[in-house]
Amino acid sequence: MAQYRAPLRDIQFVLHELLQVETHLRELPPHTEVDADTINQVLEEAGRFCQEVVFPLNASGDREGCTYADGAVRTPAGFKGAYRHFVEAGWPSLACDREYGGQGLPVLVNNALYEMLNAANQAWTMYPGLSHGAYECLAAHGRDREKRLYLPKLVSGEWSGTMCLTEAHCGTDLGLLRTKAMPEAGAEAGAGTGTDEAGAYRLTGTKIFISSGEHDLAENIVHLVLARLPDAPAGTKGISLFIVPKFVPTADGGVGERNAVRCGAIEHKMGIHGNATCVINLDGARGWLVGEPHRGLNAMFVMMNTARLGVGMQGLGLSEVAYQNALAYAKERIQMRSLSGVKAPDKPADPIIVHPDVRRILLTQKAYIEGARAFTSWLALQIDRMTAHPDAQERREAADMVALLTPVAKAFLTDNAFESTSHAMQVFGGYGYIRETGVEQYVRDARINMIYEGTNAVQALDLLGRKVLGDMGAKLKTFGKLIEAFVDEEGIKPDMQEFVNPLADLGTKVQKLTMEIGMKAMANPDEVGAAAVPYLRVVGHLVFAYFWARMARIALDQAPGGDPFYRAKLATARFYFARLLPETAAQIRMARAGASTLMDPDETLF
Amino acid sequence: MAQYRAPLRDIQFVLHELLQVETHLRELPPHTEVDADTINQVLEEAGRFCQEVVFPLNASGDREGCTYADGAVRTPAGFKGAYRHFVEAGWPSLACDREYGGQGLPVLVNNALYEMLNAANQAWTMYPGLSHGAYECLAAHGRDREKRLYLPKLVSGEWSGTMCLTEAHCGTDLGLLRTKAMPEAGAEAGAGTGTDEAGAYRLTGTKIFISSGEHDLAENIVHLVLARLPDAPAGTKGISLFIVPKFVPTADGGVGERNAVRCGAIEHKMGIHGNATCVINLDGARGWLVGEPHRGLNAMFVMMNTARLGVGMQGLGLSEVAYQNALAYAKERIQMRSLSGVKAPDKPADPIIVHPDVRRILLTQKAYIEGARAFTSWLALQIDRMTAHPDAQERREAADMVALLTPVAKAFLTDNAFESTSHAMQVFGGYGYIRETGVEQYVRDARINMIYEGTNAVQALDLLGRKVLGDMGAKLKTFGKLIEAFVDEEGIKPDMQEFVNPLADLGTKVQKLTMEIGMKAMANPDEVGAAAVPYLRVVGHLVFAYFWARMARIALDQAPGGDPFYRAKLATARFYFARLLPETAAQIRMARAGASTLMDPDETLF
Repeated sequence: MAQYRAPLRDIQFVLHELLQVETHLRELPPHTEVDADTINQVLEEAGRFCQEVVFPLNASGDREGCTYADGAVRTPAGFKGAYRHFVEAGWPSLACDREYGGQGLPVLVNNALYEMLNAANQAWTMYPGLSHGAYECLAAHGRDREKRLYLPKLVSGEWSGTMCLTEAHCGTDLGLLRTKAMPEAGAEAGAGTGTDEAGAYRLTGTKIFISSGEHDLAENIVHLVLARLPDAPAGTKGISLFIVPKFVPTADGGVGERNAVRCGAIEHKMGIHGNATCVINLDGARGWLVGEPHRGLNAMFVMMNTARLGVGMQGLGLSEVAYQNALAYAKERIQMRSLSGVKAPDKPADPIIVHPDVRRILLTQKAYIEGARAFTSWLALQIDRMTAHPDAQERREAADMVALLTPVAKAFLTDNAFESTSHAMQVFGGYGYIRETGVEQYVRDARINMIYEGTNAVQALDLLGRKVLGDMGAKLKTFGKLIEAFVDEEGIKPDMQEFVNPLADLGTKVQKLTMEIGMKAMANPDEVGAAAVPYLRVVGHLVFAYFWARMARIALDQAPGGDPFYRAKLATARFYFARLLPETAAQIRMARAGASTLMDPDETLF
Repeated sequence: MAQYRAPLRDIQFVLHELLQVETHLRELPPHTEVDADTINQVLEEAGRFCQEVVFPLNASGDREGCTYADGAVRTPAGFKGAYRHFVEAGWPSLACDREYGGQGLPVLVNNALYEMLNAANQAWTMYPGLSHGAYECLAAHGRDREKRLYLPKLVSGEWSGTMCLTEAHCGTDLGLLRTKAMPEAGAEAGAGTGTDEAGAYRLTGTKIFISSGEHDLAENIVHLVLARLPDAPAGTKGISLFIVPKFVPTADGGVGERNAVRCGAIEHKMGIHGNATCVINLDGARGWLVGEPHRGLNAMFVMMNTARLGVGMQGLGLSEVAYQNALAYAKERIQMRSLSGVKAPDKPADPIIVHPDVRRILLTQKAYIEGARAFTSWLALQIDRMTAHPDAQERREAADMVALLTPVAKAFLTDNAFESTSHAMQVFGGYGYIRETGVEQYVRDARINMIYEGTNAVQALDLLGRKVLGDMGAKLKTFGKLIEAFVDEEGIKPDMQEFVNPLADLGTKVQKLTMEIGMKAMANPDEVGAAAVPYLRVVGHLVFAYFWARMARIALDQAPGGDPFYRAKLATARFYFARLLPETAAQIRMARAGASTLMDPDETLF
């Protein structure tokens, strides 16, 4: 039987000891009163909910999957009850604005909640997870009427949300999308004016791969749909965003008339079987414009950073649950004797955790997980700072860090999660490959995270092309200053040499690599695409090395002979620098290899 | 719809141009008359069979899976018909001894057949694939009576075979196995004497994870079962091998009485759904000793090298079919414009093969596939040479190469295959994650190959501990001489610098790394386990670099402006050296990192 324990001690370490979030929150007007005790209580409660309510439905949800009949989707047994529980406990509203009934807690708390939810059950978590994105998008770009009608319901979780972007012929390339929106009489008059007067549009088209597009958890589903107005220019500059409810709300916010937006089928997938991936047909469905005409992508991109960080958290959650199970098995399963002498003389063989390579793959998981937790918690704090800091310069700097490092959180963490869950499976040997053990599901579920919300190659292009080279490395330098400050402070301390030296060295290499690619890219833009994926892995390790060095500092101050928690942290930091960071030696060479070996061969030679 | 075309041109290139197998076969008495035309005809016919008969059952077999009821297993629709076809066409007998009705062709031809069968349908191929292992084991160690009764049926394919090793509490650690064998009256008298007189044993115990352990394809199933005699010493030196037929053969080789060996259940697995993975219960089942008492593991290990190379071929086959589908999709799917300017002005977007990172992951697959095909074909040729060469010294050298490099073929190829099939899936984007496209099945199927026949970490320990350090690097030096000879010959040619220099450099590094680990291991045996997995990847690249340099030589002689086949080969060689070989920079550092970061932390700190 698979198991999951919310890793509260480690989350608390990251929030309070590493990041000292209370100090930061005191500077943010909406959160000045959020203290450590409040955060811990919320997370303890969240951990219990995840362990007791959501996790027990994970394997059964995978086995049963969703079923489709006549436009309706039935989620696996128990999903609906757990969702009701979730809504009643108020979890959807955690980080929502108090104006719409939210609890107004910082994003970083919601982020920790989502790590645990994803660990417990990624497929289930995608139902409420997408609602939060819809909430953010509407809160930022909706007109008053839509905010008033929809936001309280999304905040409470009574209604859920989706993002309808993809069509059969366009995923990455949204400029190609074809769904049409025709104005009803009066629709255009009030567009973008913030009045209540604007009328509706009629949307026609077919969207695919819509996660949570139809289900039986909530009484209404709010689709955010990208479509083209009749006068729209071609390409990405002619795309508008609409809100298309499954049931049109009545004036007092109740559930009204059934709208012509229907689920035509659900996909059979490698994993996340418990989440309905839908074909959504719009047959003259009524929709209301969100934001300006033709500016739909901009409005949608508001939710992109959170959504992409959210996918990173899916990777982290799956890695954590897979690791916990692999670790338990490694301590319990006995097989062969240690090469350096019998370790469990009372047993017919030693537990497999005595074998160096089992430890190597366990520590790989552990180092990736704890590095990811530190990084994403810090990134979530930057989201809070960019939204709520009173100083514009601080907000801008935080926004720069979010822009720069969100693609890293999405791609680096989900690549690592596929590797980590696969390592966890390997610890189980043949038992890992059978369904009963539960660990193979984590591998299958983890695989989607490398694809959706922009494939990991798209993230890498975003990082290198837009975020780094796009501003001549300015944002990267800002992050670099954090590292420099740390290196300056710690570099003179003998106990930190083993961490600070490789960190400083990698920082220098990243600078040099970035300049080199920048120069080459001026002559040939394909150099960006040729270098992007290995470049992202190098930056990912720079980020992890920074956080691991910082965690090592804390552990060194606490560790010798003391609390095993800090000794473990120090041991994992040492493992990270000895065994994972060296990947950069290869990735830098790959990133420098240039475009010619890729682009010279004619496509007929493939 | 997924597609598969047998890669005959490339197989022929490897066999005839790269390895010039005809020259070698002329030195081997059983194969002096096997010429290129014969080999090509056989492989063309095999390719057609794989494409037309086996491949169409792959996706449907995955969807349907095997079903179990009352001890019987029904394989997916069409599997039985395809197997009958296979038997009627004589494929099982290809590389079997003429004495038992085989065609006596070299192993290297059978190996190429199996690449194609695995590409077409790994789950189906595991039914006949395991029979061949049983054939080899019996042919080498069986007594005359058993050979006479069983071999003709295994050769014809009328009966199939299994290997029954694993028990619930022991997979890697066979020393723990508990299945018991009690002699019937007279059983021991003739044991190991090669007479017909010896009686049977009664076997009792439960085996798990028995691939093809029960099915409806063949009229009888021949289990090779490891068990303990009553007087057996504990551990691996007390294990004997028995042949336990599902139906006891009659004296004239017909199907006789039902034996007490029964399938108790089948596993639900991540992949290879079409193959029945069985719990096999032995309830006093009649079995006959194969080889000497207590020497069962030695007898079983005869089939291990071929079986492990066979798993490598599963990885290669899946990589090839996944690549073919990803490539077709990359040429057809249009999405975004090339960063270096529009490439398909007549279309609304460019085919995704214009994007550098799509090319990077396609070429990664291609370079791994073609490197693997060269390497495994050469390894299969060494198997033929070690069996059939008239000169003892030649046989010994060939056997050394097989011993040294079989774990590399198993582990390096299957790790690469999991990565390659996952890359293929990524080319498809969201479509890759849904079942319909077919590519996610390859990822799921590929995952088992890293586990069974000895996990890849076990292969790495076998390579470094037993094969390399076990003889003070003697076998490794023999392989090194091949590289040195090539470097000496080609190193002075300007057009080969880009290949020979990194090859020679890596060769030197491997020598140094090996010595270093050897020294450390004398002080602490855990250093072997700590270094083994990265060490295997370094050796894998040394092997691939050698074969890619040799292929580049041929291509350079043929290429400029000429046949696109050679231009493609040269381009892929360049890609391999620029983009994949650099992985060794990281793996060497990881292999050198030592055991301390793994072994110092107490297990409670994980």
